[in-house]
Amino acid sequence: MRVYDVSRPIHPEMFTYKDKEEKRPRFTVVRDFAADGSGARETRIDLDVHTGTHLDASLHMLPEGPAVHALAPERFFGIAYVADFADREGGIGAAVLRERLHALVAVPSAAPSSEQGEAWRAELRGTFVLLRTRSSLVERFLWDFPYLAADGAEFLAGLQVRGVGIDALGIERDQPGHPTHKILLSRGIAIYEGLNLAEVPEGVYAFFALPLSLVDVEASPVRAVLIDDPELVAYFSKRKGLSA
Amino acid sequence: MRVYDVSRPIHPEMFTYKDKEEKRPRFTVVRDFAADGSGARETRIDLDVHTGTHLDASLHMLPEGPAVHALAPERFFGIAYVADFADREGGIGAAVLRERLHALVAVPSAAPSSEQGEAWRAELRGTFVLLRTRSSLVERFLWDFPYLAADGAEFLAGLQVRGVGIDALGIERDQPGHPTHKILLSRGIAIYEGLNLAEVPEGVYAFFALPLSLVDVEASPVRAVLIDDPELVAYFSKRKGLSA
Ligand SMILES: [Zn+2]
Ligand SMILES: [Zn+2]
Repeated sequence: MRVYDVSRPIHPEMFTYKDKEEKRPRFTVVRDFAADGSGARETRIDLDVHTGTHLDASLHMLPEGPAVHALAPERFFGIAYVADFADREGGIGAAVLRERLHALVAVPSAAPSSEQGEAWRAELRGTFVLLRTRSSLVERFLWDFPYLAADGAEFLAGLQVRGVGIDALGIERDQPGHPTHKILLSRGIAIYEGLNLAEVPEGVYAFFALPLSLVDVEASPVRAVLIDDPELVAYFSKRKGLSA
Repeated sequence: MRVYDVSRPIHPEMFTYKDKEEKRPRFTVVRDFAADGSGARETRIDLDVHTGTHLDASLHMLPEGPAVHALAPERFFGIAYVADFADREGGIGAAVLRERLHALVAVPSAAPSSEQGEAWRAELRGTFVLLRTRSSLVERFLWDFPYLAADGAEFLAGLQVRGVGIDALGIERDQPGHPTHKILLSRGIAIYEGLNLAEVPEGVYAFFALPLSLVDVEASPVRAVLIDDPELVAYFSKRKGLSA
């Protein structure tokens, strides 16, 4: 069992979307130790909920969409496939996603090819698909970050995945009308942005990334982990339909 | 498999420690939808890291203690025992803890009684012990909340538990010198405060409650869940020593 912390540490100097200063977190110590070390420390944090590793709920892009507090916690853990696109630029579309996920997701080879397709779809249904791009390889905002193209989002939505994650601070890059967000969020598919997948090999993992229960808020910072352990993966594989 | 959300929702009107107004969270929508529903919502949150359901790291009470970001994520999940003290007032000490935990934790009865004691200790080592008190039964701050007494903290530290949780907003109540916090935090035992255990029966669960990776900060709000499933409990029981 190996645990990967796939979250980015949160601090006032961290990088932000488009390097905007006003998006940085601010920490304020409101109570501190006395000179002799007695007393206690207490801090307030002030942060944009889209800073660092975070979850977007539907309310981010859809005025009627649920906020983070309204979603059951079991939507935020389960099986995750990490797919590597570190050598790609621009939009990640349906064709390259299909290719990587066919390489990653094993299905019984004895079955006729038509049933293999269905078995492959069944393996992916209710899972998280996490895209590892070159954003994981740097500790700064990439203005030309690789992103999930609209037809890639349609492809993943068609597979009925539970969530989609990316290491960039956005899952799309100034696409007019935000089609990638809307395709996923309108079907209740969670979006994770700002993951750090630098150390994570392609493969299948148990994934935990629960948002804070922020009432009527559209997103939440998360601590996200991947656990590499075949027994735990087998456990969650049996329960993929739980809350899809 | 049943999932209990044992976190309290976070919102500007939530109750705070000693009902202090200045401890409440503040939410600010910094970008919002246009009248036609286009655009997106973006919020900043400003909160005391001890508001609602949260984790205290050693730095809360010990100037040299680690901050939350410095602790490996595997310290924050595993086996949890929920012990009920809803009919108790005041400090929860070693005697009542021993009694409840002996009732809760099964050990092979065939073994001689001396070995039963060691088997019982082995079951508890590396687990989380969560105290359900009458704080779970109300949605307000109890000025006379039941708390973990210093000798209860010594008892749990002696068992080498990984973490201790309570549903009150504090694990102790104005004890001079904060002995309960210091006994636990000086041994690297995580403290969870502000859990909501209202719906949770006594028993054994898988527990997940990872803090945000807040750099050099002494605590973090958490989304905490208990999973009631014997197979998952068995999985984590085999791995209790992982990071204790
Ligand atoms: Zn976002
Ligand atoms: Zn605290």
